[in-house]
Amino acid sequence: MVNVGILGATGMVGQRFIELLADHPEFEITALSASKRSAGKRYEDAATWYLDSKIPENVKDILVVDTDPSEVKGVEIVFSALPADIAAVVEPKFAEKHIVASNASAMRMEPDVPLVIPEVNPEHLDLVEMQQKNRGWDGFVVTNPNCSTIALVMTLKPLYDQFDIKRVYVSTMQAVSGAGYDGVPSMAIIDNLVPFIGEEEDKVETEPPYILGDLEEGVVTPAQFKVSASCHRVAVLDGHTEAVFIEMGDNFEIDYVKKVLRNFKGLPQKLELYSAPKNPVIVREEENRPQPRMDRNEENGMSVVVGRVRKDTVFDDNIKYVLVGHNTIRGAAGASILNAELINEIL
Amino acid sequence: MVNVGILGATGMVGQRFIELLADHPEFEITALSASKRSAGKRYEDAATWYLDSKIPENVKDILVVDTDPSEVKGVEIVFSALPADIAAVVEPKFAEKHIVASNASAMRMEPDVPLVIPEVNPEHLDLVEMQQKNRGWDGFVVTNPNCSTIALVMTLKPLYDQFDIKRVYVSTMQAVSGAGYDGVPSMAIIDNLVPFIGEEEDKVETEPPYILGDLEEGVVTPAQFKVSASCHRVAVLDGHTEAVFIEMGDNFEIDYVKKVLRNFKGLPQKLELYSAPKNPVIVREEENRPQPRMDRNEENGMSVVVGRVRKDTVFDDNIKYVLVGHNTIRGAAGASILNAELINEIL
Amino acid sequence: MVNVGILGATGMVGQRFIELLADHPEFEITALSASKRSAGKRYEDAATWYLDSKIPENVKDILVVDTDPSEVKGVEIVFSALPADIAAVVEPKFAEKHIVASNASAMRMEPDVPLVIPEVNPEHLDLVEMQQKNRGWDGFVVTNPNCSTIALVMTLKPLYDQFDIKRVYVSTMQAVSGAGYDGVPSMAIIDNLVPFIGEEEDKVETEPPYILGDLEEGVVTPAQFKVSASCHRVAVLDGHTEAVFIEMGDNFEIDYVKKVLRNFKGLPQKLELYSAPKNPVIVREEENRPQPRMDRNEENGMSVVVGRVRKDTVFDDNIKYVLVGHNTIRGAAGASILNAELINEIL
Amino acid sequence: MVNVGILGATGMVGQRFIELLADHPEFEITALSASKRSAGKRYEDAATWYLDSKIPENVKDILVVDTDPSEVKGVEIVFSALPADIAAVVEPKFAEKHIVASNASAMRMEPDVPLVIPEVNPEHLDLVEMQQKNRGWDGFVVTNPNCSTIALVMTLKPLYDQFDIKRVYVSTMQAVSGAGYDGVPSMAIIDNLVPFIGEEEDKVETEPPYILGDLEEGVVTPAQFKVSASCHRVAVLDGHTEAVFIEMGDNFEIDYVKKVLRNFKGLPQKLELYSAPKNPVIVREEENRPQPRMDRNEENGMSVVVGRVRKDTVFDDNIKYVLVGHNTIRGAAGASILNAELINEIL
Repeated sequence: MVNVGILGATGMVGQRFIELLADHPEFEITALSASKRSAGKRYEDAATWYLDSKIPENVKDILVVDTDPSEVKGVEIVFSALPADIAAVVEPKFAEKHIVASNASAMRMEPDVPLVIPEVNPEHLDLVEMQQKNRGWDGFVVTNPNCSTIALVMTLKPLYDQFDIKRVYVSTMQAVSGAGYDGVPSMAIIDNLVPFIGEEEDKVETEPPYILGDLEEGVVTPAQFKVSASCHRVAVLDGHTEAVFIEMGDNFEIDYVKKVLRNFKGLPQKLELYSAPKNPVIVREEENRPQPRMDRNEENGMSVVVGRVRKDTVFDDNIKYVLVGHNTIRGAAGASILNAELINEIL
Repeated sequence: MVNVGILGATGMVGQRFIELLADHPEFEITALSASKRSAGKRYEDAATWYLDSKIPENVKDILVVDTDPSEVKGVEIVFSALPADIAAVVEPKFAEKHIVASNASAMRMEPDVPLVIPEVNPEHLDLVEMQQKNRGWDGFVVTNPNCSTIALVMTLKPLYDQFDIKRVYVSTMQAVSGAGYDGVPSMAIIDNLVPFIGEEEDKVETEPPYILGDLEEGVVTPAQFKVSASCHRVAVLDGHTEAVFIEMGDNFEIDYVKKVLRNFKGLPQKLELYSAPKNPVIVREEENRPQPRMDRNEENGMSVVVGRVRKDTVFDDNIKYVLVGHNTIRGAAGASILNAELINEIL
Repeated sequence: MVNVGILGATGMVGQRFIELLADHPEFEITALSASKRSAGKRYEDAATWYLDSKIPENVKDILVVDTDPSEVKGVEIVFSALPADIAAVVEPKFAEKHIVASNASAMRMEPDVPLVIPEVNPEHLDLVEMQQKNRGWDGFVVTNPNCSTIALVMTLKPLYDQFDIKRVYVSTMQAVSGAGYDGVPSMAIIDNLVPFIGEEEDKVETEPPYILGDLEEGVVTPAQFKVSASCHRVAVLDGHTEAVFIEMGDNFEIDYVKKVLRNFKGLPQKLELYSAPKNPVIVREEENRPQPRMDRNEENGMSVVVGRVRKDTVFDDNIKYVLVGHNTIRGAAGASILNAELINEIL
Repeated sequence: MVNVGILGATGMVGQRFIELLADHPEFEITALSASKRSAGKRYEDAATWYLDSKIPENVKDILVVDTDPSEVKGVEIVFSALPADIAAVVEPKFAEKHIVASNASAMRMEPDVPLVIPEVNPEHLDLVEMQQKNRGWDGFVVTNPNCSTIALVMTLKPLYDQFDIKRVYVSTMQAVSGAGYDGVPSMAIIDNLVPFIGEEEDKVETEPPYILGDLEEGVVTPAQFKVSASCHRVAVLDGHTEAVFIEMGDNFEIDYVKKVLRNFKGLPQKLELYSAPKNPVIVREEENRPQPRMDRNEENGMSVVVGRVRKDTVFDDNIKYVLVGHNTIRGAAGASILNAELINEIL
């Protein structure tokens, strides 16, 4: 068993880390950090547990410590659920000696930090060596993309491998949990939606071509297609829904498109990593699916569910579909954990 | 005062007709029709009033009649809130002697039936003459577009007049009232959304180029641009929100785009029609607007509110924005009434 | 294994029966009935699956039959999720040869039909013998109470055994699933609540004293206390919440009251029945619990979660608390199944 | 016109004060205070406007000042929408020279501070004289009760005048706006309810007998009946719903009870105060009313709507009913304004 710590363990994503790691066969939670206010308390006393599941027994009594390498002791890997501004300061300190599997956005676009979805671009982990050399660290940081990006790219990857993607338009309908427990007041979302999420569109536009880019001689050259996003918050607890329009350079048979999506497997499936879904992408045929409440928990929340895959009747060369991905599992804690499982297996 | 009747007066849109016509200076409700089950009852007894406003006093005692020209007596104009299949049968019968201002989809795409938004294509009313000649009717049918189409086209019209629009992508987040009072079960939409609305995408794709098309020698030639839509139902009572991506053929200054939207006025504004909003399109600058609950009632629900008007940072020639329009007012009953006001003024 | 059938298998409660019986160690689903419209179809084709779980594989291919004893073949027990009016006609027919474990209200108050919560009044099953004699049936009907009643009575039983209960006031906040999938339109409940549920208050008032009554010489004498209810529908998917005020005839220590609730065990716990929760009543100490979304699934939805157990500061002799019970599991399908498990064990 | 100021003008209740006073015939808003963070800014820049209505033109440019008598200049009356802890410190300072019409709970139960609902106990204003004498103030403080209390007491008053009320049980279903804009996270209330509101039950239990008490020789003797409350938060934007059970000492005819409620008029109706509703209590006969979304805005949100008025079928001497009152209008800002109108008229 590898001892692991969770940085920012009391928030929404921190709690998902705990839930997903509670019975993990390779990783054992031995340290939890949070803000100074919580430090020194038993986890059960420090955190208000927000999830439907119960707070795991083996975590209740862990004493929460300050988010500092001198306090988070005896762990090999730290999972980071920190806010971006704190992550920017703290993650490099931890990386001196630890593997940092981060869900924070702070270091995602640094040229020597891998931004990885294990099914999509595991080869970007090669940046680790350069990162350690550049920075003189014994440990390193590996990041996963933004929640909306992950679900989108998991569907783009199999298409990108088979077809010429020219342009992607994506309109998201995102769950309130993405903003943290207190992020969206009920006054803002009952009988309403909010057509804006800070910095989200930039992430959804920037990250996908980078993730699908080629790593050569230590430099990632982004893929040629581009993504334009419009991001919106809706009255859903968990599960981001995205309407995707793709301008293709090729002719295609829609049944073949579905087959390509359905058959998509990546390295985690090959290696049978513990958190890897059997089917990274599930394609449904019902006209009114995917729906966030009905589909977000597919394969423990680690699959992306796609539906309404159709040839655009207006623009012949276009594909349209709708996807749902669980934002705090596949899109956050689960993503970091799968990264760590892959690292644990291959590095 | 012109005596008017409302066909399908007990449903959601029927009730909006009643609400909007209750104090109308030109039209007086003198007849209400509904299904046979309701015929013979006082309106107050036949209908469960769904709106926040009160059922108007002058309507309570009107006896509901069957939806047939022999029963709907003494009126010049009928407003149709009928389902499409019934409208297809009944509206032609009424048109023999009446002006039919219809919100139903049944006859929208008939080549001799005007599909009109008064601010956008009032000249299409010229089809009326041909319609009467073709069909030997003393009356005629004029239709308004689908709710999502109306809000979209009201924003496209001023842009289309100034710029070269090539492609439009629109992703909608539509209110539950659009499906009628019983249309969306609460079990389907609490903590959820439904990424499908029957026949909606086809309407949103087909109608806009037709409405913006040129009428010459009795034939509408659709505008050259095309629209691709993805339509979704969200937990909002009233007010459709649409995320719009436009591929433009021209360079543009985004401030000029906003100015063009803001300054848009049409014939109803010139004629100062009773239900015409002063500003058909309202542009907001806040980063998190428009929101359906906050913006749907602008100018009594007859304006479309646009926000987040921005140059696409990825695709330089693209415009992106979000709009909100009240689906049962501007997108349904109010649209038919404005059509009738225009007809009353100019025909 | 006992072969069982489910009557009314396509509705909300019917689906819960299927979900709960899919992996049952004693009962095997071999027949499913529904309305004529569904008869002859594979279950997967006949039903729109509403639950978050997946439709069980072993049920998908069962051919749905008409709800008639001549069609529902080869089963010993039938579970009834029928509407009351249909149940009134059909359940007696099935009872000629089958054990009918019914969630319907039709026969609950018949003097020779047991109305049973296994933890509370298993001795009422003695009515079965009289029922069979009276009616000349080889089978019999056993019913479970209304969903709101069950959760309430499970908390009243341990108190009733220890204290003198004089009056109970209960105000419910009930989930929309209780009305069936289409029962509550979203237009009725978004930003709203409905302070009325047809016939519900009568059930909640009539059933508890009857269930807690003594069965002597074939007659149930209701308990002496009475219940007054006010029932309301709120925007919650599953889980009924009830605010309970009890006027007591005794002095009491509130800690002892909590202990009595916590320690409550019944015959199903003693017999270790498969669906029996370890703790029929769970008492929480947080000031803001129980909450339906957080607590409805305790012990697979078979426990009732109680919180805010407090001495009334105004009326010294009163107890106040709030409870949550899963309405379609503990309050419906799970209740019938636990009845059947008890019957299977002891009759 | 009387110049008035609003203390705490940027919050939910502060905004309701502004909305309700914008076109007031007697009061003119000339000063607005808020926290130091907002002081010095134009109101439009300091506040995020939360209401569906528009921010009034005549208020946009008012410079927000610090909440201190030395800053809030040139006003005769101040309306207080301050949090209780700040109100406790600040309101006495303002009362040295101003009339303070307060919605805060801080001073409600002080023996020389009137706690007034103008329709119910206007005679309690006689405490003002004593208050001024006791404290040496030129101004004074008058308070209105808690939002849930006001709606409840408005229905109890006419009953109390005609009947012998012995005990009242009330179970509330309260709107999220009562907690302020950020008070209830959407994660807490979607598909959920929260059965607890801090300090609410104590207010609902303590205030009603006090308000209905007799003021004699400077001392209020509470009415003899008592109230026991259980308070819950539900997913409703505005409008508190309360289920009321009353144990009566008398026989009564339920039709007479309704008549008494319907005919209730108080001093504000007699004096035709500007904000006074024509009917303080509206009684509806539909079985499923009142509903918060449908009924909260009756008479500009100043009436309480009562429905399901019924004789308890279980406890013969009991009355049961459900009420809805607008919590931030009748239950907060509107209540303070009506107090000020009454003072302006009679003191």
